[in-house]
Amino acid sequence: MQLGLVGLGRMGGNMRERLRTAGHEVVGYDPNPDLTDVASLAELVEKLAAPRAVWIMVPAAVTEQTVDELAGLLSAGDIVIDGGNSRYTDDLPRSERLNTVGIGYIDVGVSGGVWGRENGYALMVGGSEEHVERLMPVFESLKPPGEFGFVHAGPVGAGHYAKMVHNGIEYGLMHAYAEGYELLSKSELVTNVPGVFKSWREGTVVRSWLLDLLDIALEEDPELASLRGYADDTGEGRWTVEEAIRLAVPMNVIAASLFARFASRQDDSPAMKAIAALRQQFGGHAIHKN
Amino acid sequence: MQLGLVGLGRMGGNMRERLRTAGHEVVGYDPNPDLTDVASLAELVEKLAAPRAVWIMVPAAVTEQTVDELAGLLSAGDIVIDGGNSRYTDDLPRSERLNTVGIGYIDVGVSGGVWGRENGYALMVGGSEEHVERLMPVFESLKPPGEFGFVHAGPVGAGHYAKMVHNGIEYGLMHAYAEGYELLSKSELVTNVPGVFKSWREGTVVRSWLLDLLDIALEEDPELASLRGYADDTGEGRWTVEEAIRLAVPMNVIAASLFARFASRQDDSPAMKAIAALRQQFGGHAIHKN
Amino acid sequence: MQLGLVGLGRMGGNMRERLRTAGHEVVGYDPNPDLTDVASLAELVEKLAAPRAVWIMVPAAVTEQTVDELAGLLSAGDIVIDGGNSRYTDDLPRSERLNTVGIGYIDVGVSGGVWGRENGYALMVGGSEEHVERLMPVFESLKPPGEFGFVHAGPVGAGHYAKMVHNGIEYGLMHAYAEGYELLSKSELVTNVPGVFKSWREGTVVRSWLLDLLDIALEEDPELASLRGYADDTGEGRWTVEEAIRLAVPMNVIAASLFARFASRQDDSPAMKAIAALRQQFGGHAIHKN
Amino acid sequence: MQLGLVGLGRMGGNMRERLRTAGHEVVGYDPNPDLTDVASLAELVEKLAAPRAVWIMVPAAVTEQTVDELAGLLSAGDIVIDGGNSRYTDDLPRSERLNTVGIGYIDVGVSGGVWGRENGYALMVGGSEEHVERLMPVFESLKPPGEFGFVHAGPVGAGHYAKMVHNGIEYGLMHAYAEGYELLSKSELVTNVPGVFKSWREGTVVRSWLLDLLDIALEEDPELASLRGYADDTGEGRWTVEEAIRLAVPMNVIAASLFARFASRQDDSPAMKAIAALRQQFGGHAIHKN
Repeated sequence: MQLGLVGLGRMGGNMRERLRTAGHEVVGYDPNPDLTDVASLAELVEKLAAPRAVWIMVPAAVTEQTVDELAGLLSAGDIVIDGGNSRYTDDLPRSERLNTVGIGYIDVGVSGGVWGRENGYALMVGGSEEHVERLMPVFESLKPPGEFGFVHAGPVGAGHYAKMVHNGIEYGLMHAYAEGYELLSKSELVTNVPGVFKSWREGTVVRSWLLDLLDIALEEDPELASLRGYADDTGEGRWTVEEAIRLAVPMNVIAASLFARFASRQDDSPAMKAIAALRQQFGGHAIHKN
Repeated sequence: MQLGLVGLGRMGGNMRERLRTAGHEVVGYDPNPDLTDVASLAELVEKLAAPRAVWIMVPAAVTEQTVDELAGLLSAGDIVIDGGNSRYTDDLPRSERLNTVGIGYIDVGVSGGVWGRENGYALMVGGSEEHVERLMPVFESLKPPGEFGFVHAGPVGAGHYAKMVHNGIEYGLMHAYAEGYELLSKSELVTNVPGVFKSWREGTVVRSWLLDLLDIALEEDPELASLRGYADDTGEGRWTVEEAIRLAVPMNVIAASLFARFASRQDDSPAMKAIAALRQQFGGHAIHKN
Repeated sequence: MQLGLVGLGRMGGNMRERLRTAGHEVVGYDPNPDLTDVASLAELVEKLAAPRAVWIMVPAAVTEQTVDELAGLLSAGDIVIDGGNSRYTDDLPRSERLNTVGIGYIDVGVSGGVWGRENGYALMVGGSEEHVERLMPVFESLKPPGEFGFVHAGPVGAGHYAKMVHNGIEYGLMHAYAEGYELLSKSELVTNVPGVFKSWREGTVVRSWLLDLLDIALEEDPELASLRGYADDTGEGRWTVEEAIRLAVPMNVIAASLFARFASRQDDSPAMKAIAALRQQFGGHAIHKN
Repeated sequence: MQLGLVGLGRMGGNMRERLRTAGHEVVGYDPNPDLTDVASLAELVEKLAAPRAVWIMVPAAVTEQTVDELAGLLSAGDIVIDGGNSRYTDDLPRSERLNTVGIGYIDVGVSGGVWGRENGYALMVGGSEEHVERLMPVFESLKPPGEFGFVHAGPVGAGHYAKMVHNGIEYGLMHAYAEGYELLSKSELVTNVPGVFKSWREGTVVRSWLLDLLDIALEEDPELASLRGYADDTGEGRWTVEEAIRLAVPMNVIAASLFARFASRQDDSPAMKAIAALRQQFGGHAIHKN
């Protein structure tokens, strides 16, 4: 089918390629003239036959404005798909705004990173049955072959919601491996830490894609000596814990993973300064001065 | 090669079968007459040509006594292999006891459960280079084919150590999925929770064998309505956190996973009774009486 | 000085009494005719000489509407004080709304509960230097005598912010005692658990007002047998963790205390059902059926 | 009454003074000739009339050896008191060793630090009714006046157990304040952080001795700029969490406080290196190189 695609960066560019390979007609727009197929959003809309479908794949910071621009160019019966990392709470207001002029809205959580072009992108989709139905040819081509890698999770918002939880879980998984790595690396007994991770890749309960990646990383740098223990966090981890608070879900593991990232970015810990101050006050405990 | 195998339960029995299929001569002993090949440990030892190798695959509670019995029957140059779930701290004393009479010792952490017979068992091995070398034919047949599923992790104790950390990581991984499941199941937006898990099995960062299992479980019982939220814990989870304490490794994620299992087995929480008591005292807050 | 006081429940009623005892002229309004001094907010405003100060002490749910009603009755130069449990993020918008008609705004976090009338209320105040100055006679009478129990924490919002953090800390403190209580209560060695808490009230590092309350509770009910381990959470605990997420502050302790309250209100844990399901899948582990 | 006191450092020296002020006859021994009353343990024992009571107040590392030396010098009917920071699991074996030669044993957890001499030491005591009875005159003089500051917690071991839990709680309390401090210090709204802590010292739920100390520390150094966020941990915190694991007590708060101390002593976090490695592998995320 025919699809407009806004945003042709690492993700969008690869998706365009995968869709074209599958026989779809993709009209892509990007502000970067080296990447774009058309000169403007207006031209993109012109090139598509109604009823149109336009997939937005831009950084979260400019999604809202892109949706608004498209709203002014599209017509009743068209559909906008947001495949970026929007917070799920943005989806319903956005959808309602578009609906007032008869434009449909679908939110899609997209996973797959740099491997997606070849292996397919996992798609978590929110929207009406009717709109999702119309886009199925595109979803079918983007997703990995087989029964996995696609879900119509619920109404508008459910796609980004499922992707948010996916990323929250990812935080917890990564940190479980990370704690195990640290323990092994401190053990006096285990002399072959990278070998232990490699051994786990088959026949164990902990085998996973993340484990495979950690094995690859340890093969390149067995003591991770080239890296600093520093990690940014993206919005989804924070949103997951905030949503747990809203819904009164105990979430110690994912929250601890998030907090560990916060701590990794501190030169010194104000909280631990307070601990040091207290220990100095009550016991004359040894403290470390700046 | 020739191997004595003590303990022919679910694990040991399947391992005997896998080893025989691979052409090894296995003499098995089990107190259960329906399972055993020989009438006693003494007969097992007699049937093996020196230098012998005897693999112990019995419940942790009787490992020590089995090792001691074997020590009285075996000769200098023989090797004892413990493939059970011993705590790594038991390995060195055991090894030293055997060494005084010239018997070697290898510890092996074995993973694979009921799938191991067909797919192979992941093996984490601790012991001397020489002893591990001698057992390699057996290890090769037990492990999954290919480059994964086996490591000589270090000297005596390192095998059980690596298996302990494996299980600790497993606690954290499971709990990360569990928290995500709870959040999804409480969400007002996501109407197809099992579908979301299924979608993650391809193309995502969180794909893993545990995820596959959770998908299967949700297919059978989409709301897990038949289960109670109750989980025992085996020794390895506790040992992992204790070892983290010994080595001063921050371990919030795995510890939280362990504590959640403790909490799952309580009818009521004494700690939360204390919270309720405090709230009653200071604010006349509503409390729930027994 | 003269003060209007809206809301004469447990807190507001006691504050009126404390202020009158100190010689202030308080005009109180409450929808409950048994408590109120005047028939309406309008009458309350009439009875006060300009420039007026009106202190709102109503449930959070009706604060916004009370502020709006007052905005229609008061004049430029008057001041509204919110002493309720508002979220700090509500203060600035509210203040700006009032400022457009020349009315000032102060937010006050009030602590002290049922003991406040006699011992004084701790006051955490946010607002301009000028407005706080004008209200100082009232603050002086409400607060406990001496150098403690009052702070001008910063501009509008800082008072509720400080109170929010106060309550977050309170969650952590309570849970630290609660965990210690549970451990003692399970110990085979300690036969006099209430006595241990009593012993800590003097000469120890852990002495505190909360400890005093726990001692009193244990004196009444040494095994807390009459209580269920159930605790609601008020907004401040959640807001504290959300604010920690916003500012990237690691907050494992307070978050764990909050999550424990969530868990205390669950009949069964969906997360632990997922754990049980996984254990059933991979190992044939014993599970508990509903 | 007459008491032998072994170890006259900061704690023991002050206790000797407090006991003498109360009219007791104290014979003190310390390897430091400037502090000691006698030249040897043997002379100390000689100077005491049977049945003797000897209180040991030495570093944990030399307690065992001191007990053994005393065992060779004392007679049946004498009592040894260990007031040091022994692990409770050491008490019963020690007691049984002494009992075989008719010597009694009492364990005492002592709190109070540098303030103890003036205000009294909180004492948590384990031992038989008869032995505790005999020592009551000493306990009465060491403890703070009034009904608090003393408990006979249970049989041998219960005193150190109660002290262990006391210190575990202390970790949690300190960290709750510390997290609140960090949040306040990062807030854009609160301009007077030390003032907020000072305000909490009267009339609030969070008032405590630790809060008083934090206020004093912030008065001296309002931004704690002179301190590094570094804290050692003593055995009791670790033992508390290990005991929680043994007794299956969920202990997220105290464990998190302990782990935060571990983290405070790391130059870089191996666990976060693993996180960074994973992020680099799967997403080309920005990483920080060493």
